[in-house]
Amino acid sequence: MTLLNETHDARLRSWVASANAAGCDFPLQNLPFAVFRRRGASEAFRGGVAIGDQILDLAAVAASGVLQGPAAAAAQAGAQDKLNALMALGQGAWSALRLALSRALREGSALQAPLQACLVPQPQAEYDVPARIGDYTDFYTSVHHATNIGKQFRPDNPLLPNYKWVPIGYHGRASSIVVSGQSFHRPQGQTLPPGAQAPVVGPCKRLDIELELGIFVGEGNALGQPVPIAQAEQHVFGICLLNDWSARDIQGWEYQPLGPFLSKNFATTVSPWVVTLEALAPYRVAFTRPEGDPAPLPYLDSDANRERGAFDIQLQVGLRTPAMAAAGQADATLCRTSYRHAYWTVAQMLTHHTINGCNLQPGDLLGSGTLSGPTLDQAGALIELTSGGKNPVQLPGGEQRVFLEDGDTVVLRGWCEKPGAARVGFGECWGTVLPAL
Amino acid sequence: MTLLNETHDARLRSWVASANAAGCDFPLQNLPFAVFRRRGASEAFRGGVAIGDQILDLAAVAASGVLQGPAAAAAQAGAQDKLNALMALGQGAWSALRLALSRALREGSALQAPLQACLVPQPQAEYDVPARIGDYTDFYTSVHHATNIGKQFRPDNPLLPNYKWVPIGYHGRASSIVVSGQSFHRPQGQTLPPGAQAPVVGPCKRLDIELELGIFVGEGNALGQPVPIAQAEQHVFGICLLNDWSARDIQGWEYQPLGPFLSKNFATTVSPWVVTLEALAPYRVAFTRPEGDPAPLPYLDSDANRERGAFDIQLQVGLRTPAMAAAGQADATLCRTSYRHAYWTVAQMLTHHTINGCNLQPGDLLGSGTLSGPTLDQAGALIELTSGGKNPVQLPGGEQRVFLEDGDTVVLRGWCEKPGAARVGFGECWGTVLPAL
Repeated sequence: MTLLNETHDARLRSWVASANAAGCDFPLQNLPFAVFRRRGASEAFRGGVAIGDQILDLAAVAASGVLQGPAAAAAQAGAQDKLNALMALGQGAWSALRLALSRALREGSALQAPLQACLVPQPQAEYDVPARIGDYTDFYTSVHHATNIGKQFRPDNPLLPNYKWVPIGYHGRASSIVVSGQSFHRPQGQTLPPGAQAPVVGPCKRLDIELELGIFVGEGNALGQPVPIAQAEQHVFGICLLNDWSARDIQGWEYQPLGPFLSKNFATTVSPWVVTLEALAPYRVAFTRPEGDPAPLPYLDSDANRERGAFDIQLQVGLRTPAMAAAGQADATLCRTSYRHAYWTVAQMLTHHTINGCNLQPGDLLGSGTLSGPTLDQAGALIELTSGGKNPVQLPGGEQRVFLEDGDTVVLRGWCEKPGAARVGFGECWGTVLPAL
Repeated sequence: MTLLNETHDARLRSWVASANAAGCDFPLQNLPFAVFRRRGASEAFRGGVAIGDQILDLAAVAASGVLQGPAAAAAQAGAQDKLNALMALGQGAWSALRLALSRALREGSALQAPLQACLVPQPQAEYDVPARIGDYTDFYTSVHHATNIGKQFRPDNPLLPNYKWVPIGYHGRASSIVVSGQSFHRPQGQTLPPGAQAPVVGPCKRLDIELELGIFVGEGNALGQPVPIAQAEQHVFGICLLNDWSARDIQGWEYQPLGPFLSKNFATTVSPWVVTLEALAPYRVAFTRPEGDPAPLPYLDSDANRERGAFDIQLQVGLRTPAMAAAGQADATLCRTSYRHAYWTVAQMLTHHTINGCNLQPGDLLGSGTLSGPTLDQAGALIELTSGGKNPVQLPGGEQRVFLEDGDTVVLRGWCEKPGAARVGFGECWGTVLPAL
């Protein structure tokens, strides 16, 4: 990981005034990446960098010729319709571009005039999934989630013996990953109603959310070549928000013995903005485990991972029902937690994934798994928040929910904040449930 | 599915003499697809069609201009370095190309002279994975395999209650799919030795094979739009051989609760040749279930699926140890079985995969799961053939195996044969185990 450098200096201000406002997700110290185009315009998607309420168009920046050297090459790679080429360039290129843009967007920069012409207002933009995702792997890194949900699927055996040794993961579906704002239909599928002798087919009745982070792989590794933990973070481009929509009734019937399948692969929503590990550097925290838990095996352990392997990213799930939307109400907060509670780090996930020689490629996506915190109000899924549907969540206006209903909109938010450092936000990741077809 | 037509007439002979030899996998009635190039040549991979011991180069055919209309367009799509564009064109295009090539390669064709110049001898060729595989899904369609392996992982509960209702599947890894002939290193990973309190890390000690077929998706479906079973086979381009190499000791420790992960994703080998469903039409057989088993749910049932949903594809696994290779011996047969024993059909797999709206894309790959037949000598994995490592397999020359050793080569073969029909073969799918790094 890159250490703190001038790009993190909280005193720096941008000539894009909105970037300097209190509470802004995208100040000069963040500079996350997305792919975007003007909404409704017949133009190509291309990479962009958020600054305040604007997007710096990387295709326009590359065409302007104002950047030099590795930063110019990185901007050129980022001008394509997906970020894979930029991701493949590696940490040196990302850092060079970040530093160049940090300086160019700073108050007093001589590049203000040419770059002003490269800005597109965020409200005018639409986004796409940031990368061609070759493979998507979902992990299970919250011990609290694993315990909470394990109690419901296996009351006698909630946390399996491998959990504290193996960063459990499984392959997910890449084709059905969509970007924030895209709606999806409630899935149909087989379920076994309580007490029934035979399954039935119909719309999912226990549609749930999973609050996750998504980790985009930058440089890949060759087939057969594991990535040591000391090098793992060099292979990470950045982090986004991810909602792993889940059909719990389908999952309960299908998941043994090979794991979740149709209960998960109908839609997965990611935020448009990918925050680099470099931007998150001020928010690294120690990775600790409860007293008495086994130490990670040597291939999953390092001084750096112990000292600063975790990230203190604040996370929040909001829900807005059709009635709330009709009344002009904002979404209601279902939970608040932090990524720091995860039982396995980003570096451990990536290294474990490659210990057998499995090859990761630029643009691959790793999900963190549901990031439930230690208390029930920090749980990132309704199945936990409602104790398996037994205790409904109360909403403003007297409504309640056990699982999602048609028309419900779920909004994930993430941000980092602390005294002396600039806020680094992830924006929003939202989606609306449409009725089953 | 296309019904029998002139391309299946067993009396037809090709002007490529080797295609008419008894036992040839690639007679005029087969015409499978691969991507290939001359070995060691600095030239691009492109699509080709097997005929006898030759490959008809689709790039050369397209450039020659001898085909017309939809067949010419299909050959042009097949001239690319992956078959995705041809797959996306759909059944009409594949049929048109098949009919045109069947006529052009027939004895007496006026196109013999120009097409002679488009042939590349198979011994001079090297192959690549036939498609850019966006997503790879592995199913579990042999009830015999599910029962045999279930006994070893869950002695008290071998066949789970969902098996006869749900075509169980899970997502696999696309990046580590390799083409026949590519070797791979024995994977490292975490395992829990018998009786141990804590896991250890090291090379897999129970490396296994899984005899499978791979089904390549042709035309895809839009996200949210299920594919009814009556239309399912229109979305299938063809079938290949597939070896789902498996690390049983890693699998046993990692697979709960989310399914196999590192135990499977270090390498999956596919045959270069993809046999179209149209070529397999003479070998369709009735799909039946044992008396007393539940009928498939309506969305997984149709007259056509019952009457001819299955395929009688003969399958065989061969093993050649380093000692056997040094002695110049051929591989020893470990098992013989047929795809007709599968509990779920190709159409059922594809329809089930989309019942929740999951989108399939051209080039996606579905694995059948290990195709063990009803008796133990028909089992497609060593863990079954050796009863979990307890009863070694005896090999020529006095060697024996419980699991694979370094240097072992595994060869899968598949073919269809019956009186009155031309043989339709899949060629070979082979790989060699290299020592752990």
